[in-house]
Amino acid sequence: MVFKAYYLNPEGDLQRSLSEEDIRAAFESKQGLLWVDICDTAEEDGEFLARNFGFHHLAIEACVGTLIHPPKIDDFGNYVFVIIHGINHKGESDIVETAELAVFLGSNFVVSSHNDPLYSVESIIRIVEDDGRPMKRGPDFLAYVLMDALIDNVMPTIDKMSDVADAIDEEVIHNPQQSTLEAVLKLKRSILRLHRVMAPQRDVLNRLSRREFSIIGEEARIFYRDVYDHIVRIEDLGQTLRDRADNALATHLSSVANRQNETMRVLSTVATIFLPLALVAGIYGMNFEYMPELGWHWGYFSVLGFVGAVILAVSSWFWARKWIAWSRRQVTRVRPFAVEPEKLVGYIDQVRKWSHL
Amino acid sequence: MVFKAYYLNPEGDLQRSLSEEDIRAAFESKQGLLWVDICDTAEEDGEFLARNFGFHHLAIEACVGTLIHPPKIDDFGNYVFVIIHGINHKGESDIVETAELAVFLGSNFVVSSHNDPLYSVESIIRIVEDDGRPMKRGPDFLAYVLMDALIDNVMPTIDKMSDVADAIDEEVIHNPQQSTLEAVLKLKRSILRLHRVMAPQRDVLNRLSRREFSIIGEEARIFYRDVYDHIVRIEDLGQTLRDRADNALATHLSSVANRQNETMRVLSTVATIFLPLALVAGIYGMNFEYMPELGWHWGYFSVLGFVGAVILAVSSWFWARKWIAWSRRQVTRVRPFAVEPEKLVGYIDQVRKWSHL
Amino acid sequence: MVFKAYYLNPEGDLQRSLSEEDIRAAFESKQGLLWVDICDTAEEDGEFLARNFGFHHLAIEACVGTLIHPPKIDDFGNYVFVIIHGINHKGESDIVETAELAVFLGSNFVVSSHNDPLYSVESIIRIVEDDGRPMKRGPDFLAYVLMDALIDNVMPTIDKMSDVADAIDEEVIHNPQQSTLEAVLKLKRSILRLHRVMAPQRDVLNRLSRREFSIIGEEARIFYRDVYDHIVRIEDLGQTLRDRADNALATHLSSVANRQNETMRVLSTVATIFLPLALVAGIYGMNFEYMPELGWHWGYFSVLGFVGAVILAVSSWFWARKWIAWSRRQVTRVRPFAVEPEKLVGYIDQVRKWSHL
Amino acid sequence: MVFKAYYLNPEGDLQRSLSEEDIRAAFESKQGLLWVDICDTAEEDGEFLARNFGFHHLAIEACVGTLIHPPKIDDFGNYVFVIIHGINHKGESDIVETAELAVFLGSNFVVSSHNDPLYSVESIIRIVEDDGRPMKRGPDFLAYVLMDALIDNVMPTIDKMSDVADAIDEEVIHNPQQSTLEAVLKLKRSILRLHRVMAPQRDVLNRLSRREFSIIGEEARIFYRDVYDHIVRIEDLGQTLRDRADNALATHLSSVANRQNETMRVLSTVATIFLPLALVAGIYGMNFEYMPELGWHWGYFSVLGFVGAVILAVSSWFWARKWIAWSRRQVTRVRPFAVEPEKLVGYIDQVRKWSHL
Amino acid sequence: MVFKAYYLNPEGDLQRSLSEEDIRAAFESKQGLLWVDICDTAEEDGEFLARNFGFHHLAIEACVGTLIHPPKIDDFGNYVFVIIHGINHKGESDIVETAELAVFLGSNFVVSSHNDPLYSVESIIRIVEDDGRPMKRGPDFLAYVLMDALIDNVMPTIDKMSDVADAIDEEVIHNPQQSTLEAVLKLKRSILRLHRVMAPQRDVLNRLSRREFSIIGEEARIFYRDVYDHIVRIEDLGQTLRDRADNALATHLSSVANRQNETMRVLSTVATIFLPLALVAGIYGMNFEYMPELGWHWGYFSVLGFVGAVILAVSSWFWARKWIAWSRRQVTRVRPFAVEPEKLVGYIDQVRKWSHL
Repeated sequence: MVFKAYYLNPEGDLQRSLSEEDIRAAFESKQGLLWVDICDTAEEDGEFLARNFGFHHLAIEACVGTLIHPPKIDDFGNYVFVIIHGINHKGESDIVETAELAVFLGSNFVVSSHNDPLYSVESIIRIVEDDGRPMKRGPDFLAYVLMDALIDNVMPTIDKMSDVADAIDEEVIHNPQQSTLEAVLKLKRSILRLHRVMAPQRDVLNRLSRREFSIIGEEARIFYRDVYDHIVRIEDLGQTLRDRADNALATHLSSVANRQNETMRVLSTVATIFLPLALVAGIYGMNFEYMPELGWHWGYFSVLGFVGAVILAVSSWFWARKWIAWSRRQVTRVRPFAVEPEKLVGYIDQVRKWSHL
Repeated sequence: MVFKAYYLNPEGDLQRSLSEEDIRAAFESKQGLLWVDICDTAEEDGEFLARNFGFHHLAIEACVGTLIHPPKIDDFGNYVFVIIHGINHKGESDIVETAELAVFLGSNFVVSSHNDPLYSVESIIRIVEDDGRPMKRGPDFLAYVLMDALIDNVMPTIDKMSDVADAIDEEVIHNPQQSTLEAVLKLKRSILRLHRVMAPQRDVLNRLSRREFSIIGEEARIFYRDVYDHIVRIEDLGQTLRDRADNALATHLSSVANRQNETMRVLSTVATIFLPLALVAGIYGMNFEYMPELGWHWGYFSVLGFVGAVILAVSSWFWARKWIAWSRRQVTRVRPFAVEPEKLVGYIDQVRKWSHL
Repeated sequence: MVFKAYYLNPEGDLQRSLSEEDIRAAFESKQGLLWVDICDTAEEDGEFLARNFGFHHLAIEACVGTLIHPPKIDDFGNYVFVIIHGINHKGESDIVETAELAVFLGSNFVVSSHNDPLYSVESIIRIVEDDGRPMKRGPDFLAYVLMDALIDNVMPTIDKMSDVADAIDEEVIHNPQQSTLEAVLKLKRSILRLHRVMAPQRDVLNRLSRREFSIIGEEARIFYRDVYDHIVRIEDLGQTLRDRADNALATHLSSVANRQNETMRVLSTVATIFLPLALVAGIYGMNFEYMPELGWHWGYFSVLGFVGAVILAVSSWFWARKWIAWSRRQVTRVRPFAVEPEKLVGYIDQVRKWSHL
Repeated sequence: MVFKAYYLNPEGDLQRSLSEEDIRAAFESKQGLLWVDICDTAEEDGEFLARNFGFHHLAIEACVGTLIHPPKIDDFGNYVFVIIHGINHKGESDIVETAELAVFLGSNFVVSSHNDPLYSVESIIRIVEDDGRPMKRGPDFLAYVLMDALIDNVMPTIDKMSDVADAIDEEVIHNPQQSTLEAVLKLKRSILRLHRVMAPQRDVLNRLSRREFSIIGEEARIFYRDVYDHIVRIEDLGQTLRDRADNALATHLSSVANRQNETMRVLSTVATIFLPLALVAGIYGMNFEYMPELGWHWGYFSVLGFVGAVILAVSSWFWARKWIAWSRRQVTRVRPFAVEPEKLVGYIDQVRKWSHL
Repeated sequence: MVFKAYYLNPEGDLQRSLSEEDIRAAFESKQGLLWVDICDTAEEDGEFLARNFGFHHLAIEACVGTLIHPPKIDDFGNYVFVIIHGINHKGESDIVETAELAVFLGSNFVVSSHNDPLYSVESIIRIVEDDGRPMKRGPDFLAYVLMDALIDNVMPTIDKMSDVADAIDEEVIHNPQQSTLEAVLKLKRSILRLHRVMAPQRDVLNRLSRREFSIIGEEARIFYRDVYDHIVRIEDLGQTLRDRADNALATHLSSVANRQNETMRVLSTVATIFLPLALVAGIYGMNFEYMPELGWHWGYFSVLGFVGAVILAVSSWFWARKWIAWSRRQVTRVRPFAVEPEKLVGYIDQVRKWSHL
């Protein structure tokens, strides 16, 4: 267990690196704002939480276990227990994991708990260590800042997915392969995964932004509503990506079918030209004693000419029917037309974002 | 930042081209109707809005950022903040972008904000500059006029999509190609995009037309309800287009499969005719010493005749089984039958529409 | 503009062919029941409606415009404005259009408006001209009769679609063609079109049959509920048709795939038989000096016999594996089983239906 | 019209075979319990119902017409009118029809009406004729018994569909044919049909089991809730069947594609082996004057050996690549795993079921 | 019938192995907590339940019958009747069955009933026999423990399905076969089955965790809410599995199509190379008297060289067009990217889990 604890006493001074005793004292003072962030939660952290805060053991179980819990919100009277999910970016890995953040929100404390170090929580810790700013507007606002940072951290993943979709869009037309298809399916599955992580959070944030929990003040509600709107935006972007993936899938399947068609046409063309000619050659290769043509002086050259003429004629005919059209560009009369969203410029830098606090 | 400001003072006189000081004075007079339209919003416009109107910084952020925000409506007590989306037509481009319009609606002011110049807003500005008409019925009516113009501006896009669908319908039957498929998929994706822009606006307009916001008067509600009905109509037209796209997709796939079938039949027919005949020729080309037929005088001609007869017989048989049927028209006994909507005549001209004001 | 006006004065006498002045007098008497039916609505009819009845200009716009409006119901205090859709049968055309009927329902008047002459409205006019019956039970009942007639007029279209589905069902099994597929897709699209016209009317009729509008009396509500039930029934029949169309689509695609399979099998069979035999013939056609078999007296006949035997053996083998099975009937052990709705006998004749009035 | 009428007078005596006069007397006594069951309803039955009971003519129309009506429930103040649907088993036919039962439920009477004789109603009549048991607990209970019997009578159809699904499951793997596909599609359509009959009844029964209708007593509500649960169970079983049908469809399509693949592989294998060898034979069949190999003593046998070696080598290679694998069993490493519902033992016998009454 | 009965008398002593008389006495004392667990329920158990507890016969019917009942909850005033479903693991079988548990929950008793011995109930019995712990917190808590154990017992099935999905994922890429497809379809069906068992339980547990039933105390409600959350988690994991199955299905179909494409290309390549060459050989095998090339000394070797050159050239050309690419690895420029859930570590051991009691 690794924990970091901060206490903003009623005088507005920030105390850093609290010991367990300090935490308990601050918690029991019922004043100021205590923030304890627990990382790498293990079995014994349950003891820690029960001993110092007296949380309900079901909530503690949801924190310390290694199981994943769906986003939810539980009201235990004098505190609210929230689980939300986001995405944790660690370096440049191609596989990102969803991350779970548990938050206990009381009248004078916020306890946050997560299994792995979260980039978003660390960015908040850095601001708090600096000047304690996000803690100065109360526990409901601190909890908002934690959740908002986690949710906003999903945007780089959306951007990455967008890049992958760009690469797929190009490859699927110019070089469709089995591996392209797998990339499309992987992308689609990731979008679904993201959707299933985000969808239940809409409900959680919606409840937080309504008048349901007295711990959350009128002013903070507008901010929770803003996080809700961010989730809606992420879902909308996810939907757009899903459309692109479906589009790529349909294009891929059609490309593959087209190539097979082309293959079949080559085969049919070759067989249609050469099988009859082979019959002609076979006929004049028969050993009948009386075959008048064989004695003709121009017989052989007539056959050669006939063969050449047939090859030319049938090729042209197939060409005209567009069966063999490798070099000819397809001509379409349909003017392409598309409705596109306004350009997405990127996500706001976390630190700059809270500069107004 | 580019802004245009108009003030209809309580005496009914319209002041044009207000400076920032005029705006603040008009805003603080709590009388008349002030309209400020901000285009090409940048970071510093946030300052402008905060300084002069004191809007909530979350609402301001949603205005000035370059991010796209889903349609929504927020009640900040003495003003309402609405984001709606439409489509912005710029010339004859084949790619139209969705456009976002943010509107602050207060008891004596309307502040509208958008990233790019919007055709629909410009048309309203033109009427206002002319005689200030849309401003004379109060801020709720002015906000309605702005939203209505933006939503109605989607109709030309629907018309264009309809034209594309017509072109696709024809090409998909007479000349199905990979590019046709891509046009179908692009159309489908555009319709989905439009649907996702329109669907959440139903909710926004529905709330505006109910008794939820006191700023919107009884009389204006009926007009907001009308915008709501327009969105429903647009969604209905979009659905019809989606059906057509799905239809075209199924027809395309079937055409491609049909062509492949045809290719296979040609191949099978050719092979079935010529492979056995090649065997016959091959047999009489064998060099056995004792092959009685070779000595027959009519042997060669018999073989020639046999070959011709077989080609004729098998061709006829395949013809009869409809395997080779290029020139024959397909005959169907199914009487086509369709339910069609009444003809859509077009959209009402914006200016004429508000002639009754 | 063509309009027909009837007035049932408080004494119970029916006045026919009212002039505009009569209409205004009747309307302003606030007694009796005035029915004005306007057909072929044009721009100037808006004037007519505004001048005589003082309707809201948004409602008037929805009447006179050539645009299609989704079904809706608007309460303007002293009158209710309803738009419903049906199907207008004109002769034996293969393309039927959806028809829009707008109804203004007040305490002593009904104003109905439609673009084209509606068969259903004409049937009501005929009964009214006869003895004024449907007008004797009040405006809410007259409006019900108009809507009911329009909705019931959808039934012949369902019947026609049913006939088309029958024809498709047969053709799709015995003679599947590209044109069959197009008929299936057309049918499906028509059903979807009908569904989209009917679905929003459920909501409209549901609201009319509830206690929401004071203009509609307790007794009439049961009748509106009956129209609601008819819409539910039409939707149910539409669903059944949609199932049939989907069924036909799947059967068609399977038939096409089956035929291609058959083609491939013929090709494979022919190639498998004749290519190896051609090799045998080719070998004995080689010109090596020392080929002992060539000198054998029965060599040629052995080869002939071998060829015949191979053809027979391979054919039988393919026959046994059911690769070539044109004449053999498929045998299935699956006992067909189906749940069918009770027979639909037809729709009740409009005139007879209201004989109880 | 055929009707059967029973009257349980306030003293608890059951009168059988009432005449129309008896019925009217019993109905007007407002005491006891009168049950009239009308079968084979025709136009004149409407007269009968109006004359004796004074029912609303819309309800009567729904009874006597030959049209199908969706399940519904209408409250007419002193009586409730219910339409529910079930399935009527007549002998061993492969096509079962959905059956409609209309029930009027009042404070001292139940009137049931149906077009065809219903097996379920007849079973109730038999118990009533025996000792009048189901009538002793009041009209609400009698109506429950009628509906329950009709709904439970759906179970044998589910069983039959289950048998069909078993037969399909086997055939689709071992002997997939076009007719199998048609059976699958027919099954799927029947399940959809059943779903559409059952789904709206959930709503009807739910309303009957709530406190909405004062005619239905507290005790009877639990029984209506039980019918509701049966419908839920039937829907669940239907869903399981639908999954099986979808499963069978996917397996069928895959089997067909597999067979085609197999066909193509045979063709490719044969062509790959014999076309090159035919070229070899063709080359040594050329008539060039100077072809040194032709003079070699072992030339012919070398070619024969080469041919044999190539056939063996290519066959083995294709075998190793699993292109030709008729006799080899497929080996899969995926351990099959399935979640199955507990066994369905059958449906309870109607008579035994009510033995507790 | 096998039943086990425990009674925790008001003094806190646990009585084991109660006889039927003891049960009735404990039940009628209206004190303490009586738990009766009935296994292998048969017809006569209905008598037992009616005689001793006086339960409603509809609830009893749902217990003793062999039919499956959907999850539900019924309030009978002084007791609540709940049916929930889970999965019963018996050894290492590849087919697991869903299991039904019926629970009667009253103020001083819990009666649980199931057809087969349930592993989860047995684990509770073991703890109760040990020290009666789960019974000490009241009947609502005991019922919670029973349901929680049943629901949590679904997790090993999810784990097993996950293993199957892993095996499928590998096989579908490296060795796709008809049997793989069947495994995918079986997996998908099992997931659907699980979903249909779990989905209605959400509603049951949601109602139990709300204030709806007075028998369930405030404290126990939080525990029922926890079971609800477990069901949500199971549904989420099921959804992830469903995505994987859909993914595997798409990959399988694409693999099969790819293989067919490959087959066709081999065929086309072979035919395109050897048919024209066979024609060349055939031509020089003709027996015309005047064919000048035949006399050329290098004629034969020219033809041989030409044949070799053509084979090389066409092979290279096909290679370059990637038609024959067995040994070459496909190169894709799309960087794979995936969003994955945090690792699922397993399920908590039942006994350890309740150690806090």
